[in-house]
Amino acid sequence: MLLHLITWLEVEAYLQKSQGMILPIGSTEQHGPTGLIGTDAICAEAIARGVGEATQAIVGPTINVGMALHHTAFPGTISLRPSTMIQLIRDYVTCLAKAGFTKFFFINGHGGNVATLKAAFAETYAHISDLNLANAQLVKCQVGNWFMCSSVYQLAKELYGDREGSHATPSEVAVTQYIYPEAIKQTPLSPEVASGHKIYGAADFRLRYQDGRMGSNPALATPEHGKQFYELAVKELSKTYLEFLNVE
Amino acid sequence: MLLHLITWLEVEAYLQKSQGMILPIGSTEQHGPTGLIGTDAICAEAIARGVGEATQAIVGPTINVGMALHHTAFPGTISLRPSTMIQLIRDYVTCLAKAGFTKFFFINGHGGNVATLKAAFAETYAHISDLNLANAQLVKCQVGNWFMCSSVYQLAKELYGDREGSHATPSEVAVTQYIYPEAIKQTPLSPEVASGHKIYGAADFRLRYQDGRMGSNPALATPEHGKQFYELAVKELSKTYLEFLNVE
Amino acid sequence: MLLHLITWLEVEAYLQKSQGMILPIGSTEQHGPTGLIGTDAICAEAIARGVGEATQAIVGPTINVGMALHHTAFPGTISLRPSTMIQLIRDYVTCLAKAGFTKFFFINGHGGNVATLKAAFAETYAHISDLNLANAQLVKCQVGNWFMCSSVYQLAKELYGDREGSHATPSEVAVTQYIYPEAIKQTPLSPEVASGHKIYGAADFRLRYQDGRMGSNPALATPEHGKQFYELAVKELSKTYLEFLNVE
Amino acid sequence: MLLHLITWLEVEAYLQKSQGMILPIGSTEQHGPTGLIGTDAICAEAIARGVGEATQAIVGPTINVGMALHHTAFPGTISLRPSTMIQLIRDYVTCLAKAGFTKFFFINGHGGNVATLKAAFAETYAHISDLNLANAQLVKCQVGNWFMCSSVYQLAKELYGDREGSHATPSEVAVTQYIYPEAIKQTPLSPEVASGHKIYGAADFRLRYQDGRMGSNPALATPEHGKQFYELAVKELSKTYLEFLNVE
Amino acid sequence: MLLHLITWLEVEAYLQKSQGMILPIGSTEQHGPTGLIGTDAICAEAIARGVGEATQAIVGPTINVGMALHHTAFPGTISLRPSTMIQLIRDYVTCLAKAGFTKFFFINGHGGNVATLKAAFAETYAHISDLNLANAQLVKCQVGNWFMCSSVYQLAKELYGDREGSHATPSEVAVTQYIYPEAIKQTPLSPEVASGHKIYGAADFRLRYQDGRMGSNPALATPEHGKQFYELAVKELSKTYLEFLNVE
Amino acid sequence: MLLHLITWLEVEAYLQKSQGMILPIGSTEQHGPTGLIGTDAICAEAIARGVGEATQAIVGPTINVGMALHHTAFPGTISLRPSTMIQLIRDYVTCLAKAGFTKFFFINGHGGNVATLKAAFAETYAHISDLNLANAQLVKCQVGNWFMCSSVYQLAKELYGDREGSHATPSEVAVTQYIYPEAIKQTPLSPEVASGHKIYGAADFRLRYQDGRMGSNPALATPEHGKQFYELAVKELSKTYLEFLNVE
Repeated sequence: MLLHLITWLEVEAYLQKSQGMILPIGSTEQHGPTGLIGTDAICAEAIARGVGEATQAIVGPTINVGMALHHTAFPGTISLRPSTMIQLIRDYVTCLAKAGFTKFFFINGHGGNVATLKAAFAETYAHISDLNLANAQLVKCQVGNWFMCSSVYQLAKELYGDREGSHATPSEVAVTQYIYPEAIKQTPLSPEVASGHKIYGAADFRLRYQDGRMGSNPALATPEHGKQFYELAVKELSKTYLEFLNVE
Repeated sequence: MLLHLITWLEVEAYLQKSQGMILPIGSTEQHGPTGLIGTDAICAEAIARGVGEATQAIVGPTINVGMALHHTAFPGTISLRPSTMIQLIRDYVTCLAKAGFTKFFFINGHGGNVATLKAAFAETYAHISDLNLANAQLVKCQVGNWFMCSSVYQLAKELYGDREGSHATPSEVAVTQYIYPEAIKQTPLSPEVASGHKIYGAADFRLRYQDGRMGSNPALATPEHGKQFYELAVKELSKTYLEFLNVE
Repeated sequence: MLLHLITWLEVEAYLQKSQGMILPIGSTEQHGPTGLIGTDAICAEAIARGVGEATQAIVGPTINVGMALHHTAFPGTISLRPSTMIQLIRDYVTCLAKAGFTKFFFINGHGGNVATLKAAFAETYAHISDLNLANAQLVKCQVGNWFMCSSVYQLAKELYGDREGSHATPSEVAVTQYIYPEAIKQTPLSPEVASGHKIYGAADFRLRYQDGRMGSNPALATPEHGKQFYELAVKELSKTYLEFLNVE
Repeated sequence: MLLHLITWLEVEAYLQKSQGMILPIGSTEQHGPTGLIGTDAICAEAIARGVGEATQAIVGPTINVGMALHHTAFPGTISLRPSTMIQLIRDYVTCLAKAGFTKFFFINGHGGNVATLKAAFAETYAHISDLNLANAQLVKCQVGNWFMCSSVYQLAKELYGDREGSHATPSEVAVTQYIYPEAIKQTPLSPEVASGHKIYGAADFRLRYQDGRMGSNPALATPEHGKQFYELAVKELSKTYLEFLNVE
Repeated sequence: MLLHLITWLEVEAYLQKSQGMILPIGSTEQHGPTGLIGTDAICAEAIARGVGEATQAIVGPTINVGMALHHTAFPGTISLRPSTMIQLIRDYVTCLAKAGFTKFFFINGHGGNVATLKAAFAETYAHISDLNLANAQLVKCQVGNWFMCSSVYQLAKELYGDREGSHATPSEVAVTQYIYPEAIKQTPLSPEVASGHKIYGAADFRLRYQDGRMGSNPALATPEHGKQFYELAVKELSKTYLEFLNVE
Repeated sequence: MLLHLITWLEVEAYLQKSQGMILPIGSTEQHGPTGLIGTDAICAEAIARGVGEATQAIVGPTINVGMALHHTAFPGTISLRPSTMIQLIRDYVTCLAKAGFTKFFFINGHGGNVATLKAAFAETYAHISDLNLANAQLVKCQVGNWFMCSSVYQLAKELYGDREGSHATPSEVAVTQYIYPEAIKQTPLSPEVASGHKIYGAADFRLRYQDGRMGSNPALATPEHGKQFYELAVKELSKTYLEFLNVE
């Protein structure tokens, strides 16, 4: 059930049965010469919708722009500053908690979001506690990184080995190919690809990772792989979500 | 061209020809007993994509959550505080301006966003000027409210007269029916509907507008109307966007 | 009754009878070669005081500096950033709401303030609601733009036609001449005056509107006109204020 | 010369000769049973205008609301939070520094403003330095508290001795009586008046200082005293301002 | 070399040879019935000083209070909100980067700091880039968690197995016993200790982890163990720091 | 009793008897050619610990970095912006007030902190009042500047006369020599030392005070003097703290 495709009356009815919501969060950032700028949002959104269907949960609107400051030396990247993103998450959760939601499951497509999300959750718990909401103590947020699902990770290693890399990976590119086969890009990739550098500022990042990839060979991706990753992630995260709902 | 479905190399090439970007902005808020919570985002996104196709412009990711604090007493509504939204807009525009974009056309689906957007533009111009970007003086933002297009407005008056109202309107509901025919809602609506009250805080709003509508009869909407509105809006906003590109 | 000229005991007594306050808000910004930098504050303050007398309302201190970032390329202009102004309005209204005031009528002299004021009102309602004040739901803010009064608008059209323009207008200059006849400025104005450009950043604004006027001929202003505008605005806004007080 | 009563052309001409501006800052706060809520703003504004005349300096718009959180348990008081006031001062000074002003002399009527003003100055210097303004290093702010002028202090001691107190003092009340003789208040004052308690939060303040006075007997004030205080303050602060202008 | 025990002339000389600084960051939070509230700061500070000696690096002042909001239901805990901590880190690094430092190695004693530190680094890089500092691109921050050193982790597993737990661990308690033998606490600990619950808000945390420990048995700690952990951490982090200095 | 060396159970027990806490606050800033960068933090921490012992009070963690923006043109200086420091103080006091502490005595080693501390206290009282804490009205903060103790001031005048100066003073240097005799610096000081200039921005400060001293001759300091200053300050501030505890 997509929040965007239901009415407030349907939300009201849903809240009688469940207080959980799934929130997809991606990023709008370069993904190498062949990866889509929306890769992280596309994957998170598709998988979140799959989880929503599997678990009868409401799926909120996709947070399309996350924390990608280190990618901003590549055109097309958009990023929130962490301090902005903390306020955004706080605003989302506070609105929904006032309405009765208590379990917020963020299905995340971008590793760079994790730190700021965790910081935002801490800030949000404290804020909601200060508001003296009746359900303040019940409010819980959790991140589910689809690319960290053990089944996904294992398949990626099987299919790509070291060429999975850590950004513009064939696994995430495969999922976008499965979702948007009409947007598969073909560009020759240099056989050598940088890897192993830590992430600092945007200018430094572009200097290290000149075409945007981090140790990956996205040319290995296929839509069929994408379907497999999608299904594994949906299955595993559905289980995680249901367990999360059961936390008292 | 959707920013999310292209690569940074394609953005780089695009910037040689154009420095414009279209950014859809909606809201996640109650739209009466039959209107979808995503109504404003759905309309803005669909029309923005139409304008993007008509004008060969890049369409950025949809801003799904805007300024809807006055609707937050209805469950399912999510809102940014204006101060958060100002930072968000500042972050988006700053990232893109550093990459070379200078014309930001926000196709907007929610009247409640306008004031905060304008405030955000002013804050953003000043910020970008302080950064001493080479193209600072060229950065320009503009809002295009699809529901304020004169052709749209006129059709709405013809089709619905006074029953257009000002929130959960048949015109916006019609567009969502055109885009998502599978999500058309049928619920009896009370024949009387509140109208004419000014908007203050959320609790007051719900007291005045008990089912969420403001003077509207969304039961008059049809998907065919929606198609007409969509096409009028795309045509009119495409013209506006091209004029905006031509502003020196 | 000016808040500045009464005591807290008088405020306490007033609150037994009324919970309304009038707050003049202007701007400190260039108004063309002959318009005073304080034009917007002068007009708002004078008219607010007239309304206060006519309606027995307390008139708070004038907010002399508003949102005028687009005028800051002309010396003498002072502006708050919108994010600062939102906090300022929040602080004013919160203090007064805690004391028992619930109706805040901002008599405004500057079009550029409107968007930020509306954003600030939304932020403020949400903040006050979070504070759990007993009267939170009753707190209401409204803007009254004296230059948008229908009687004022009509007279300006009669007297000046197109030469009213939209900044450094003869109508606002006339009001300042009525209030401060000793500060009437005489400088030759170029017969041509720019108009029709949208407002973006400060540098762009100065480039478009080189002497600061927007389509206006302030040389048409007279103190007698000013008196007429003043009286019309006071009459119309007094009516608006009393209606506002009656909103439940 | 009042900034509000001149044009931007006059400011431009002034900047050729001087880069100094006087900014009156007051407060909107209770001043005991007979003191005006605007006392601090009235005194600061009047004296600043006197200094402006004496020194040919531009006097900016009065900052009517300052840092008076500890008075907010008395109705009619309005206060900025310190964090808001810091942003406000930063915005004022930044706008004016960009236009060429470098010496900002705040004539202050409220002891409670001093700490936040000093904090704001530090924040502002750092901000302006970060903007790389050509004149960044020259920007200097200074507070001139009229009530701390040695001549004023001495006269207050002579006239009132211990009954000067430290809030709602006869000296400040006298100045308001001189400026606004029509607003002299007569209310019996209890002969005992609290004094010597430190200032903490608003509720505590009201508990300690039940009628708002701090050790003062404002019944001793006369308009004639007010004229004396006014003249002493203008003379002494004019000298201070001229010295400040001479700091390299 | 402790920054606090040298002069600015010595810093100036140091900067000729190295641009690195070590910054210890801890927390002020409950550590179970026998763990010191300063545990994380004590460990970070001691180990940082050891690393400073081993590598001839300047060690900055200890950040004693970090992100510990989830511990705030236990008395004695002090926490920054993540949004405050981001500004704090930004301020520290900006000051030092302006002076010429470029490598900031945060030796961290608290897992709860990591997310916010990473968010802060991203915010800081972007800020410093906006300032146009000559060395902006060289500025790099890195976290070294002493408790995550592989040698430390291995010893803890050897000594304590599962009883290491994840908060108020015997390993960190041991280090504090080594540093402050005079502050070893003896209190009977319940043999059962909660573990495995995820961390949400403060009230929830206290409910789950009633004495503050998370799966640990700090009674196993000895000062001798502490010395071993200290030495392993110093050795391993010294190596990491030197490698970090060598990153171009 | 140092907060860092006790457990939360000990804090809980302490709160039964006392609700006071001592918080040392220093600065990390240049102190002339021979003064330690940590001077202000070292003095505040040592004296706070002395007061804690004398009064059986808990001493919280030292705030090592304060408001020293004007010293940032000298390498090694670290400063919070005032707006950051206000949030930091707010966070500290709010956490502790929720746990039951109500009297916060900041033993301060740096004149430059005072204004921001006072601003922060005002902001904090208002914040805590908004949280509706049961003990909100009892929360009180006070600054004790050790260098302003009358006994300290008097001894400094006796020992050093005019050569005490106002920054990098022999008295504060003496205290650091007493605490850290191993870190006594010997560098020839120019006999002439600037004095009397007001403090504005950092670049201006360095221009005026080229070696960092303000009118002082720290070469007069001895560890024996330091011991005397320390003992006087501990004695006087212990008395002040106990009086503060007794304020209702």
